[in-house]
Amino acid sequence: MLAVRRLTRYTFLKRTHPVLYTRRAYKILPSRSTFLRRSLLQTQLHSKMTAHTNIKQHKHCHEDHPIRRSDSAVSIVHLKRAPFKVTVIGSGNWGTTIAKVIAENTELHSHIFEPEVRMWVFDEKIGDENLTDIINTRHQNVKYLPNIDLPHNLVADPDLLHSIKGADILVFNIPHQFLPNIVKQLQGHVAPHVRAISCLKGFELGSKGVQLLSSYVTDELGIQCGALSGANLAPEVAKEHWSETTVAYQLPKDYQGDGKDVDHKILKLLFHRPYFHVNVIDDVAGISIAGALKNVVALACGFVEGMGWGNNASAAIQRLGLGEIIKFGRMFFPESKVETYYQESAGVADLITTCSGGRNVKVATYMAKTGKSALEAEKELLNGQSAQGIITCREVHEWLQTCELTQEFPLFEAVYQIVYNNVRMEDLPEMIEELDIDDE
Amino acid sequence: MLAVRRLTRYTFLKRTHPVLYTRRAYKILPSRSTFLRRSLLQTQLHSKMTAHTNIKQHKHCHEDHPIRRSDSAVSIVHLKRAPFKVTVIGSGNWGTTIAKVIAENTELHSHIFEPEVRMWVFDEKIGDENLTDIINTRHQNVKYLPNIDLPHNLVADPDLLHSIKGADILVFNIPHQFLPNIVKQLQGHVAPHVRAISCLKGFELGSKGVQLLSSYVTDELGIQCGALSGANLAPEVAKEHWSETTVAYQLPKDYQGDGKDVDHKILKLLFHRPYFHVNVIDDVAGISIAGALKNVVALACGFVEGMGWGNNASAAIQRLGLGEIIKFGRMFFPESKVETYYQESAGVADLITTCSGGRNVKVATYMAKTGKSALEAEKELLNGQSAQGIITCREVHEWLQTCELTQEFPLFEAVYQIVYNNVRMEDLPEMIEELDIDDE
Repeated sequence: MLAVRRLTRYTFLKRTHPVLYTRRAYKILPSRSTFLRRSLLQTQLHSKMTAHTNIKQHKHCHEDHPIRRSDSAVSIVHLKRAPFKVTVIGSGNWGTTIAKVIAENTELHSHIFEPEVRMWVFDEKIGDENLTDIINTRHQNVKYLPNIDLPHNLVADPDLLHSIKGADILVFNIPHQFLPNIVKQLQGHVAPHVRAISCLKGFELGSKGVQLLSSYVTDELGIQCGALSGANLAPEVAKEHWSETTVAYQLPKDYQGDGKDVDHKILKLLFHRPYFHVNVIDDVAGISIAGALKNVVALACGFVEGMGWGNNASAAIQRLGLGEIIKFGRMFFPESKVETYYQESAGVADLITTCSGGRNVKVATYMAKTGKSALEAEKELLNGQSAQGIITCREVHEWLQTCELTQEFPLFEAVYQIVYNNVRMEDLPEMIEELDIDDE
Repeated sequence: MLAVRRLTRYTFLKRTHPVLYTRRAYKILPSRSTFLRRSLLQTQLHSKMTAHTNIKQHKHCHEDHPIRRSDSAVSIVHLKRAPFKVTVIGSGNWGTTIAKVIAENTELHSHIFEPEVRMWVFDEKIGDENLTDIINTRHQNVKYLPNIDLPHNLVADPDLLHSIKGADILVFNIPHQFLPNIVKQLQGHVAPHVRAISCLKGFELGSKGVQLLSSYVTDELGIQCGALSGANLAPEVAKEHWSETTVAYQLPKDYQGDGKDVDHKILKLLFHRPYFHVNVIDDVAGISIAGALKNVVALACGFVEGMGWGNNASAAIQRLGLGEIIKFGRMFFPESKVETYYQESAGVADLITTCSGGRNVKVATYMAKTGKSALEAEKELLNGQSAQGIITCREVHEWLQTCELTQEFPLFEAVYQIVYNNVRMEDLPEMIEELDIDDE
């Protein structure tokens, strides 16, 4: 079946205004005006009717949509309930940035969301003032996101339980290690109809096997929880430099129906900005796995960089890493989709960004150049912070060893051996070489 | 069915020498010794027998091999014919590098290949000497690959027809624009049993539609032709810095059988080196499409870099670009495989390398920073050379316009509009934005 064809704003304008269409004409048209949106729908309906004819005209055009980022066609949201109230839990660098994005959208779509967004802040003194008061009067998070103006409808709240009162959507955005404590405080105070999105990356590996952080929230609080992940360095998003992200959410069993409950359309309206393009998919496991394992691959890229092996080698590591991420995801979460890894911002794009810089690359490069251990490198470079890949590669190794599957993941295993068993980085190529031919 | 499990050399050693296995013990074992190879086969057979038991023990291990780079299991080559004679046509930077790789392997596997490799050289004077004579006496290509020692069994030959005399395998590695002339000279001089590999990237777009360069060789010379492509900056490969590549080859209808004709095993032995890891697949179309279109994506990355939009945006462009490359490949070559694009060196890895540097990024960054046109930028930066993406994006646009499919490829179209129609780079995010929700 041929789905409704989705047009970019650009191609839409070119089609509807073939004569007027010049750079100047384009820029003076009001963006997102009612006129534009209506015309867009008409164009797309027209496109639906004519697309198949176009395709058949050309013998080389075998397929229409081999790749499609999400299944949703153009749709209009008619809310059949009170606007959703949103609370962001967390106010660090990334937490405040996401709260800014959300508050801009709740203001814009005020018939879908309550404009006021609460942000829970772990309160602290900045000089004589409370951080909460500074945010609520000067509208900047001077400690964790300085020099970025925050919307006035974003309200900092130091009281966790007060901040979530009446909330329909909770957005978790705190450091991984604080999650259990926060969740414990919330237990018994969250109604089952509440929905959540976790901006925390990754999963936990323990005796129970691989557990997604979103599943942890669901298990502990009894609410449906999705995830947000992507190639998003917080300072760039805060400055409204263009980037993309992926939101993953599965409709729960008690889904209330279109216009009555959180779904992919509602989540797109909540997170999508002109500078922050959002794709919403089902695959929570896929984006969580990719979000955690990319850090292990980034360590290997850091080794390669430190050894001075150049761009070919770094690209090879990323290719191999993507393959092992997909293999790991498909092995332990067979419901996750291969496309998520190679086609989503939370997959290949986040991998590329993470491998081009950041804490893991920094630590690994330093190890290669100085011969120091991972712990020494972390200590000297990161001011008490940690490179997540160092922890993740050990957890992954231990889990794969339990499964007797370490040999299926030669890159992950090589990183573990280099970090923890003093194996030489020079041996990396040999450790991942596939010997599938013999010339005897 | 469970295929034979392939082990890396590293995991093999760990399994066969659990006590001895330390970094030192590993290094003193002779590499590729007969002992090692025999043990490897035994280990793998053992592994085959026990793998399934291991898998079933662990409830989380749902699949064994969701991703496998090639279908070949461990195999031994028994040649049932005279050793293959190989000629490399071309002696530039990349041509000489590949000839070096090949000559190292023909020497090593002298019962499979004739050790002497001929390399056709477009002869020219270097001072008073012929380049050919310099290569054959000093064993360096002083003009195109200086300071790299070449194997003595690599013989430069200025006579094209003489160089291919008796050759069983031709490796084409000349600039794209010289191919028609070379092929014309070869017509009538190449026996139908000869096989070829093209190291030229890409395809031609003309009135006939999209034609692969390998198909062009097949059409013009009547011989089967595959391709080699990957994340391979020639100088790094020449210096034996570790990298990977992809060779693609389909067995022809007149395939003579195992040990009698060129196949995936023979090609792996011909190109694989400890520093140059080769994967051999069937998908000639996939690696050729990826090799050409990556240059268009690299232009977009250059715009982003020149605009100072940062790593998030560059990663987003690469993600989008990979999606459009896959879509283009699947649309016009439905036999090409999605895995080729996201799992091979010639796919995602080459895209990453190309987007992290090189001529296309350089030209596009300069355009963004100075406001100059593509042609001006090329002229000022490239000394008469061209950035391939500038040509490819126009060819792709014209072809897609013929098919009325430009709107299906918003990134390729945006690059074309920016380069040729003076559309503003600032509009790039809007041009590729997907409008699939309306909140009315």
